[in-house]
Amino acid sequence: MPNATTTTTTSQRSSKSEIRTAEIYRVAANLIQEKGYDATSMNDIAKKLKLTKAGLYYYINGKRELLYSITKFGMQQLEDQVLTPCRAIEDPEDRLKQMIERHTLMILEIGGSISILTDEIQSLTPANRKRIVMLKRGYMELVRETLQELRAQKKMKQLNINITAMNIFAVILGVARWYSPKKGWTSKKVSREVSKFVMGGILK
Amino acid sequence: MPNATTTTTTSQRSSKSEIRTAEIYRVAANLIQEKGYDATSMNDIAKKLKLTKAGLYYYINGKRELLYSITKFGMQQLEDQVLTPCRAIEDPEDRLKQMIERHTLMILEIGGSISILTDEIQSLTPANRKRIVMLKRGYMELVRETLQELRAQKKMKQLNINITAMNIFAVILGVARWYSPKKGWTSKKVSREVSKFVMGGILK
Repeated sequence: MPNATTTTTTSQRSSKSEIRTAEIYRVAANLIQEKGYDATSMNDIAKKLKLTKAGLYYYINGKRELLYSITKFGMQQLEDQVLTPCRAIEDPEDRLKQMIERHTLMILEIGGSISILTDEIQSLTPANRKRIVMLKRGYMELVRETLQELRAQKKMKQLNINITAMNIFAVILGVARWYSPKKGWTSKKVSREVSKFVMGGILK
Repeated sequence: MPNATTTTTTSQRSSKSEIRTAEIYRVAANLIQEKGYDATSMNDIAKKLKLTKAGLYYYINGKRELLYSITKFGMQQLEDQVLTPCRAIEDPEDRLKQMIERHTLMILEIGGSISILTDEIQSLTPANRKRIVMLKRGYMELVRETLQELRAQKKMKQLNINITAMNIFAVILGVARWYSPKKGWTSKKVSREVSKFVMGGILK
Protein backbone atom coordinates (compact mmCIF):
# COMPACT_ATOMS: atom_id res chain seq x y z
CA MET A 1 0.00 0.00 0.00
CA PRO A 2 2.44 2.69 -1.15
CA ASN A 3 -0.02 5.53 -0.63
CA ALA A 4 -1.66 4.59 2.66
CA THR A 5 0.33 7.16 4.61
CA THR A 6 -0.57 9.94 2.19
CA THR A 7 -4.22 8.95 2.46
CA THR A 8 -4.10 9.12 6.24
CA THR A 9 -3.30 12.79 6.21
CA THR A 10 -6.31 13.34 3.93
CA SER A 11 -9.13 12.67 6.34
CA GLN A 12 -9.45 13.80 9.90
CA ARG A 13 -9.86 10.42 11.59
CA SER A 14 -9.86 7.67 8.99
CA SER A 15 -10.59 4.17 10.15
CA LYS A 16 -8.35 1.44 8.78
CA SER A 17 -11.19 0.29 6.52
CA GLU A 18 -11.73 3.81 5.15
CA ILE A 19 -8.05 4.09 4.31
CA ARG A 20 -8.19 0.73 2.55
CA THR A 21 -11.29 1.74 0.61
CA ALA A 22 -9.64 4.98 -0.52
CA GLU A 23 -6.62 2.97 -1.65
CA ILE A 24 -8.87 0.59 -3.60
CA TYR A 25 -10.57 3.54 -5.33
CA ARG A 26 -7.18 5.00 -6.22
CA VAL A 27 -5.91 1.75 -7.73
CA ALA A 28 -9.20 1.09 -9.56
CA ALA A 29 -9.27 4.65 -10.90
CA ASN A 30 -5.70 4.28 -12.20
CA LEU A 31 -6.61 1.06 -14.00
CA ILE A 32 -9.84 2.46 -15.45
CA GLN A 33 -8.03 5.54 -16.69
CA GLU A 34 -5.28 3.43 -18.25
CA LYS A 35 -7.34 0.64 -19.84
CA GLY A 36 -10.84 2.10 -20.01
CA TYR A 37 -13.83 1.11 -17.89
CA ASP A 38 -14.99 -1.76 -20.12
CA ALA A 39 -11.57 -3.37 -20.34
CA THR A 40 -10.96 -3.25 -16.56
CA SER A 41 -12.22 -6.33 -14.68
CA MET A 42 -12.74 -6.90 -10.97
CA ASN A 43 -9.99 -9.51 -11.33
CA ASP A 44 -7.53 -6.87 -12.63
CA ILE A 45 -8.29 -4.65 -9.65
CA ALA A 46 -7.99 -7.50 -7.12
CA LYS A 47 -4.69 -8.61 -8.66
CA LYS A 48 -3.21 -5.12 -8.53
CA LEU A 49 -4.20 -4.85 -4.85
CA LYS A 50 -2.93 -8.35 -4.06
CA LEU A 51 -6.42 -9.25 -2.84
CA THR A 52 -8.59 -12.25 -3.65
CA LYS A 53 -11.74 -11.42 -5.59
CA ALA A 54 -13.77 -12.24 -2.45
CA GLY A 55 -11.52 -9.92 -0.45
CA LEU A 56 -12.18 -7.13 -2.94
CA TYR A 57 -15.96 -7.66 -2.69
CA TYR A 58 -15.66 -7.02 1.05
CA TYR A 59 -14.89 -3.40 0.16
CA ILE A 60 -16.87 -2.81 -3.03
CA ASN A 61 -20.19 -4.18 -4.27
CA GLY A 62 -19.21 -4.80 -7.86
CA LYS A 63 -18.02 -3.12 -11.00
CA ARG A 64 -21.38 -1.57 -11.84
CA GLU A 65 -21.31 0.44 -8.60
CA LEU A 66 -17.56 1.06 -8.64
CA LEU A 67 -17.45 4.02 -10.99
CA TYR A 68 -20.14 5.82 -9.04
CA SER A 69 -18.47 4.97 -5.72
CA ILE A 70 -15.19 6.42 -6.95
CA THR A 71 -16.77 9.63 -8.20
CA LYS A 72 -18.89 9.92 -5.03
CA PHE A 73 -15.74 9.51 -2.96
CA GLY A 74 -14.01 12.20 -5.07
CA MET A 75 -16.95 14.59 -4.67
CA GLN A 76 -17.19 13.88 -0.93
CA GLN A 77 -13.53 14.75 -0.51
CA LEU A 78 -14.10 17.91 -2.52
CA GLU A 79 -17.06 18.83 -0.33
CA ASP A 80 -15.26 18.14 2.98
CA GLN A 81 -11.81 19.44 2.16
CA VAL A 82 -12.56 22.29 -0.23
CA LEU A 83 -16.13 23.53 -0.47
CA THR A 84 -17.28 23.43 3.18
CA PRO A 85 -14.21 25.16 4.64
CA CYS A 86 -14.10 27.71 1.79
CA ARG A 87 -17.77 28.67 2.01
CA ALA A 88 -16.97 29.85 5.54
CA ILE A 89 -14.31 32.33 4.37
CA GLU A 90 -15.64 35.90 4.24
CA ASP A 91 -13.03 37.63 2.05
CA PRO A 92 -13.39 36.60 -1.64
CA GLU A 93 -9.68 36.88 -2.44
CA ASP A 94 -8.76 34.67 0.50
CA ARG A 95 -11.65 32.29 -0.33
CA LEU A 96 -10.51 31.84 -3.92
CA LYS A 97 -6.88 31.34 -2.93
CA GLN A 98 -7.84 28.73 -0.31
CA MET A 99 -10.12 27.00 -2.80
CA ILE A 100 -7.34 26.66 -5.38
CA GLU A 101 -4.74 25.47 -2.85
CA ARG A 102 -7.06 23.06 -1.06
CA HIS A 103 -8.38 21.53 -4.29
CA THR A 104 -4.86 21.12 -5.65
CA LEU A 105 -3.68 19.51 -2.39
CA MET A 106 -6.68 17.20 -2.41
CA ILE A 107 -5.90 16.04 -5.95
CA LEU A 108 -2.28 15.37 -5.03
CA GLU A 109 -3.36 13.42 -1.94
CA ILE A 110 -6.15 11.21 -3.29
CA GLY A 111 -4.41 10.73 -6.65
CA GLY A 112 -5.10 12.34 -10.00
CA SER A 113 -7.03 9.44 -11.52
CA ILE A 114 -9.92 9.78 -9.08
CA SER A 115 -10.22 13.48 -9.95
CA ILE A 116 -10.05 12.80 -13.69
CA LEU A 117 -12.71 10.10 -13.48
CA THR A 118 -14.92 12.42 -11.45
CA ASP A 119 -14.46 14.99 -14.19
CA GLU A 120 -15.26 12.54 -17.02
CA ILE A 121 -18.57 11.05 -16.03
CA GLN A 122 -19.99 9.80 -19.34
CA SER A 123 -20.06 6.15 -18.22
CA LEU A 124 -22.37 6.71 -15.23
CA THR A 125 -26.10 5.98 -15.20
CA PRO A 126 -28.20 9.12 -15.79
CA ALA A 127 -29.38 9.25 -12.13
CA ASN A 128 -25.87 9.01 -10.69
CA ARG A 129 -24.54 11.41 -13.27
CA LYS A 130 -27.19 13.91 -12.23
CA ARG A 131 -26.10 13.85 -8.59
CA ILE A 132 -22.54 14.61 -9.57
CA VAL A 133 -23.57 17.30 -12.02
CA MET A 134 -25.50 18.96 -9.17
CA LEU A 135 -22.47 18.89 -6.88
CA LYS A 136 -20.29 20.35 -9.63
CA ARG A 137 -22.83 23.05 -10.34
CA GLY A 138 -22.60 24.13 -6.69
CA TYR A 139 -18.83 24.42 -6.98
CA MET A 140 -19.13 26.38 -10.21
CA GLU A 141 -21.59 28.75 -8.55
CA LEU A 142 -19.22 29.33 -5.62
CA VAL A 143 -16.40 30.25 -8.01
CA ARG A 144 -18.61 32.53 -10.09
CA GLU A 145 -19.94 34.30 -6.99
CA THR A 146 -16.43 34.73 -5.66
CA LEU A 147 -15.31 36.27 -8.96
CA GLN A 148 -18.33 38.58 -8.92
CA GLU A 149 -17.40 39.74 -5.43
CA LEU A 150 -13.85 40.40 -6.59
CA ARG A 151 -15.23 42.37 -9.52
CA ALA A 152 -17.45 44.41 -7.18
CA GLN A 153 -14.36 45.17 -5.09
CA LYS A 154 -12.64 46.30 -8.34
CA LYS A 155 -9.90 43.73 -7.77
CA MET A 156 -10.57 41.62 -10.86
CA LYS A 157 -9.09 42.17 -14.32
CA GLN A 158 -11.42 42.84 -17.23
CA LEU A 159 -12.13 39.17 -17.91
CA ASN A 160 -15.27 37.15 -18.68
CA ILE A 161 -16.40 35.47 -15.46
CA ASN A 162 -17.57 32.20 -17.03
CA ILE A 163 -14.47 31.71 -19.16
CA THR A 164 -12.28 32.62 -16.18
CA ALA A 165 -14.05 30.03 -14.01
CA MET A 166 -13.36 27.38 -16.67
CA ASN A 167 -9.71 28.49 -16.86
CA ILE A 168 -9.36 28.15 -13.08
CA PHE A 169 -10.72 24.60 -13.12
CA ALA A 170 -8.48 23.75 -16.07
CA VAL A 171 -5.33 24.69 -14.15
CA ILE A 172 -6.39 22.81 -11.00
CA LEU A 173 -7.53 19.69 -12.85
CA GLY A 174 -4.46 19.95 -15.06
CA VAL A 175 -2.41 19.02 -11.99
CA ALA A 176 -4.25 15.68 -11.91
CA ARG A 177 -2.97 15.03 -15.43
CA TRP A 178 0.62 16.27 -15.37
CA TYR A 179 1.77 15.68 -11.79
CA SER A 180 3.87 12.67 -11.01
CA PRO A 181 5.63 12.05 -7.67
CA LYS A 182 8.82 11.62 -9.73
CA LYS A 183 8.82 15.39 -10.30
CA GLY A 184 10.06 15.80 -6.74
CA TRP A 185 8.04 18.85 -5.71
CA THR A 186 6.08 18.78 -2.45
CA SER A 187 2.29 19.04 -2.59
CA LYS A 188 2.54 22.35 -0.77
CA LYS A 189 4.96 23.74 -3.39
CA VAL A 190 2.71 22.70 -6.29
CA SER A 191 -0.47 24.05 -4.67
CA ARG A 192 1.19 27.41 -3.96
CA GLU A 193 2.55 27.69 -7.49
CA VAL A 194 -0.90 26.94 -8.88
CA SER A 195 -2.63 29.51 -6.68
CA LYS A 196 -0.01 32.19 -7.41
CA PHE A 197 -0.37 31.60 -11.16
CA VAL A 198 -4.19 31.62 -11.06
CA MET A 199 -4.55 34.59 -8.69
CA GLY A 200 -2.10 36.54 -10.89
CA GLY A 201 -4.25 35.72 -13.91
CA ILE A 202 -7.37 37.11 -12.25
CA LEU A 203 -6.37 40.00 -10.01
CA LYS A 204 -5.42 43.47 -11.20
CA MET B 1 -20.23 18.36 -42.83
CA PRO B 2 -20.98 21.00 -40.21
CA ASN B 3 -17.35 21.93 -39.70
CA ALA B 4 -16.02 21.95 -43.23
CA THR B 5 -16.09 25.73 -43.47
CA THR B 6 -14.23 26.16 -40.21
CA THR B 7 -11.62 23.70 -41.37
CA THR B 8 -11.09 25.66 -44.58
CA THR B 9 -9.90 28.71 -42.70
CA THR B 10 -7.44 26.49 -40.85
CA SER B 11 -5.03 25.64 -43.61
CA GLN B 12 -3.59 27.90 -46.23
CA ARG B 13 -4.85 26.10 -49.33
CA SER B 14 -6.66 22.92 -48.37
CA SER B 15 -7.68 20.62 -51.16
CA LYS B 16 -11.18 19.14 -50.95
CA SER B 17 -9.68 15.80 -49.96
CA GLU B 18 -7.64 17.37 -47.16
CA ILE B 19 -10.74 19.03 -45.76
CA ARG B 20 -12.60 15.73 -45.90
CA THR B 21 -9.73 13.92 -44.19
CA ALA B 22 -9.65 16.52 -41.40
CA GLU B 23 -13.40 16.10 -40.96
CA ILE B 24 -12.97 12.32 -40.75
CA TYR B 25 -10.29 12.71 -38.09
CA ARG B 26 -12.54 15.04 -36.13
CA VAL B 27 -15.48 12.64 -36.20
CA ALA B 28 -13.30 9.62 -35.41
CA ALA B 29 -11.62 11.47 -32.53
CA ASN B 30 -15.03 12.39 -31.10
CA LEU B 31 -16.15 8.77 -31.24
CA ILE B 32 -12.91 7.43 -29.76
CA GLN B 33 -13.06 9.95 -26.96
CA GLU B 34 -16.70 9.07 -26.23
CA LYS B 35 -16.57 5.27 -26.51
CA GLY B 36 -12.88 4.46 -26.15
CA TYR B 37 -10.55 3.26 -28.90
CA ASP B 38 -11.33 -0.46 -28.53
CA ALA B 39 -15.09 0.03 -28.62
CA THR B 40 -14.99 2.24 -31.74
CA SER B 41 -15.23 0.32 -35.03
CA MET B 42 -14.56 1.45 -38.60
CA ASN B 43 -18.28 0.83 -39.13
CA ASP B 44 -19.20 3.32 -36.39
CA ILE B 45 -17.00 5.95 -37.99
CA ALA B 46 -18.34 5.29 -41.52
CA LYS B 47 -21.93 5.45 -40.25
CA LYS B 48 -21.40 8.74 -38.46
CA LEU B 49 -19.88 10.21 -41.64
CA LYS B 50 -22.62 8.72 -43.84
CA LEU B 51 -19.94 6.91 -45.83
CA THR B 52 -19.74 3.28 -46.90
CA LYS B 53 -16.93 1.34 -45.27
CA ALA B 54 -15.19 1.24 -48.66
CA GLY B 55 -15.63 5.00 -48.94
CA LEU B 56 -13.99 5.45 -45.55
CA TYR B 57 -11.03 3.27 -46.56
CA TYR B 58 -10.41 5.68 -49.44
CA TYR B 59 -9.34 8.23 -46.81
CA ILE B 60 -7.81 6.10 -44.06
CA ASN B 61 -5.88 2.85 -44.11
CA GLY B 62 -7.54 1.16 -41.18
CA LYS B 63 -8.15 1.44 -37.49
CA ARG B 64 -4.64 0.42 -36.50
CA GLU B 65 -3.21 3.46 -38.30
CA LEU B 66 -6.07 5.78 -37.43
CA LEU B 67 -5.01 6.83 -33.94
CA TYR B 68 -1.52 7.69 -35.14
CA SER B 69 -2.90 9.53 -38.19
CA ILE B 70 -5.14 11.63 -35.95
CA THR B 71 -2.34 12.52 -33.55
CA LYS B 72 0.05 13.17 -36.45
CA PHE B 73 -2.53 15.49 -37.98
CA GLY B 74 -2.92 17.27 -34.63
CA MET B 75 0.83 17.67 -34.23
CA GLN B 76 1.22 18.84 -37.84
CA GLN B 77 -1.40 21.55 -37.26
CA LEU B 78 0.42 22.51 -34.08
CA GLU B 79 3.71 22.73 -35.95
CA ASP B 80 2.30 24.76 -38.87
CA GLN B 81 -0.10 27.04 -37.04
CA VAL B 82 1.65 27.53 -33.71
CA LEU B 83 5.29 26.46 -33.42
CA THR B 84 6.74 27.58 -36.77
CA PRO B 85 5.22 31.08 -36.76
CA CYS B 86 6.02 31.57 -33.06
CA ARG B 87 9.65 30.50 -33.32
CA ALA B 88 10.09 33.46 -35.68
CA ILE B 89 8.94 36.00 -33.08
CA GLU B 90 11.85 37.79 -31.43
CA ASP B 91 10.21 39.27 -28.33
CA PRO B 92 9.47 36.57 -25.70
CA GLU B 93 6.35 38.29 -24.34
CA ASP B 94 4.87 38.63 -27.80
CA ARG B 95 5.97 35.06 -28.65
CA LEU B 96 4.25 33.57 -25.61
CA LYS B 97 1.06 35.55 -26.19
CA GLN B 98 0.94 34.47 -29.84
CA MET B 99 1.63 30.87 -28.87
CA ILE B 100 -1.29 30.81 -26.42
CA GLU B 101 -3.72 32.51 -28.79
CA ARG B 102 -2.71 30.49 -31.83
CA HIS B 103 -2.85 27.16 -29.99
CA THR B 104 -6.26 27.99 -28.50
CA LEU B 105 -7.59 29.03 -31.92
CA MET B 106 -6.22 25.85 -33.45
CA ILE B 107 -8.00 23.70 -30.85
CA LEU B 108 -11.28 25.52 -31.47
CA GLU B 109 -10.88 25.08 -35.21
CA ILE B 110 -9.84 21.43 -35.51
CA GLY B 111 -12.07 20.35 -32.58
CA GLY B 112 -11.13 19.51 -29.01
CA SER B 113 -11.18 15.72 -29.38
CA ILE B 114 -8.19 15.69 -31.74
CA SER B 115 -6.19 17.75 -29.23
CA ILE B 116 -7.22 15.55 -26.31
CA LEU B 117 -6.30 12.36 -28.18
CA THR B 118 -2.95 13.87 -29.12
CA ASP B 119 -2.43 14.62 -25.45
CA GLU B 120 -3.40 11.10 -24.30
CA ILE B 121 -1.23 8.82 -26.35
CA GLN B 122 -1.11 5.62 -24.30
CA SER B 123 -2.76 3.52 -27.03
CA LEU B 124 -0.08 4.19 -29.69
CA THR B 125 2.69 1.80 -30.62
CA PRO B 126 6.00 2.65 -28.91
CA ALA B 127 7.59 3.92 -32.16
CA ASN B 128 4.70 6.24 -33.02
CA ARG B 129 4.42 7.38 -29.44
CA LYS B 130 8.09 8.29 -29.51
CA ARG B 131 7.67 10.58 -32.53
CA ILE B 132 4.88 12.46 -30.80
CA VAL B 133 6.79 12.66 -27.54
CA MET B 134 9.67 14.24 -29.47
CA LEU B 135 7.40 16.85 -31.05
CA LYS B 136 5.89 17.66 -27.66
CA ARG B 137 9.30 17.95 -26.10
CA GLY B 138 10.18 20.59 -28.70
CA TYR B 139 7.09 22.57 -27.77
CA MET B 140 7.87 22.26 -24.08
CA GLU B 141 11.42 23.50 -24.71
CA LEU B 142 10.13 26.52 -26.63
CA VAL B 143 7.85 27.46 -23.72
CA ARG B 144 10.60 26.94 -21.13
CA GLU B 145 13.08 29.02 -23.13
CA THR B 146 10.51 31.76 -23.58
CA LEU B 147 9.86 31.84 -19.82
CA GLN B 148 13.59 31.95 -19.17
CA GLU B 149 13.93 34.95 -21.49
CA LEU B 150 11.07 36.67 -19.66
CA ARG B 151 12.82 35.95 -16.38
CA ALA B 152 16.09 37.38 -17.72
CA GLN B 153 14.17 40.51 -18.71
CA LYS B 154 12.81 40.61 -15.12
CA LYS B 155 9.26 40.47 -16.45
CA MET B 156 8.30 37.14 -14.91
CA LYS B 157 6.83 36.61 -11.46
CA GLN B 158 8.73 34.48 -8.93
CA LEU B 159 7.36 31.16 -10.26
CA ASN B 160 8.88 27.76 -11.00
CA ILE B 161 9.46 27.56 -14.76
CA ASN B 162 8.55 23.88 -15.16
CA ILE B 163 5.35 24.09 -13.12
CA THR B 164 4.40 27.29 -14.94
CA ALA B 165 4.88 25.59 -18.31
CA MET B 166 2.56 22.77 -17.20
CA ASN B 167 0.01 25.33 -15.97
CA ILE B 168 0.09 27.10 -19.34
CA PHE B 169 -0.57 23.87 -21.22
CA ALA B 170 -3.34 22.98 -18.76
CA VAL B 171 -5.25 26.19 -19.51
CA ILE B 172 -4.85 25.83 -23.29
CA LEU B 173 -5.75 22.13 -23.38
CA GLY B 174 -8.54 22.83 -20.88
CA VAL B 175 -10.30 24.69 -23.69
CA ALA B 176 -10.44 21.42 -25.65
CA ARG B 177 -12.34 19.91 -22.72
CA TRP B 178 -14.75 22.65 -21.69
CA TYR B 179 -15.52 24.55 -24.88
CA SER B 180 -18.72 23.85 -26.72
CA PRO B 181 -20.07 25.94 -29.63
CA LYS B 182 -23.29 26.24 -27.60
CA LYS B 183 -21.44 28.64 -25.28
CA GLY B 184 -21.76 31.28 -27.99
CA TRP B 185 -18.34 32.93 -27.70
CA THR B 186 -16.26 33.45 -30.82
CA SER B 187 -12.93 31.64 -31.12
CA LYS B 188 -11.19 35.00 -31.05
CA LYS B 189 -12.92 35.96 -27.78
CA VAL B 190 -11.94 32.67 -26.10
CA SER B 191 -8.33 32.78 -27.29
CA ARG B 192 -7.93 36.38 -26.04
CA GLU B 193 -9.45 35.55 -22.66
CA VAL B 194 -7.10 32.59 -22.32
CA SER B 195 -4.01 34.60 -23.23
CA LYS B 196 -4.97 37.49 -20.94
CA PHE B 197 -5.50 35.08 -18.04
CA VAL B 198 -2.24 33.19 -18.65
CA MET B 199 -0.09 36.26 -19.31
CA GLY B 200 -1.47 37.82 -16.13
CA GLY B 201 -0.51 34.68 -14.23
CA ILE B 202 3.09 34.89 -15.45
CA LEU B 203 4.03 38.53 -15.83
CA LYS B 204 4.81 40.91 -12.98
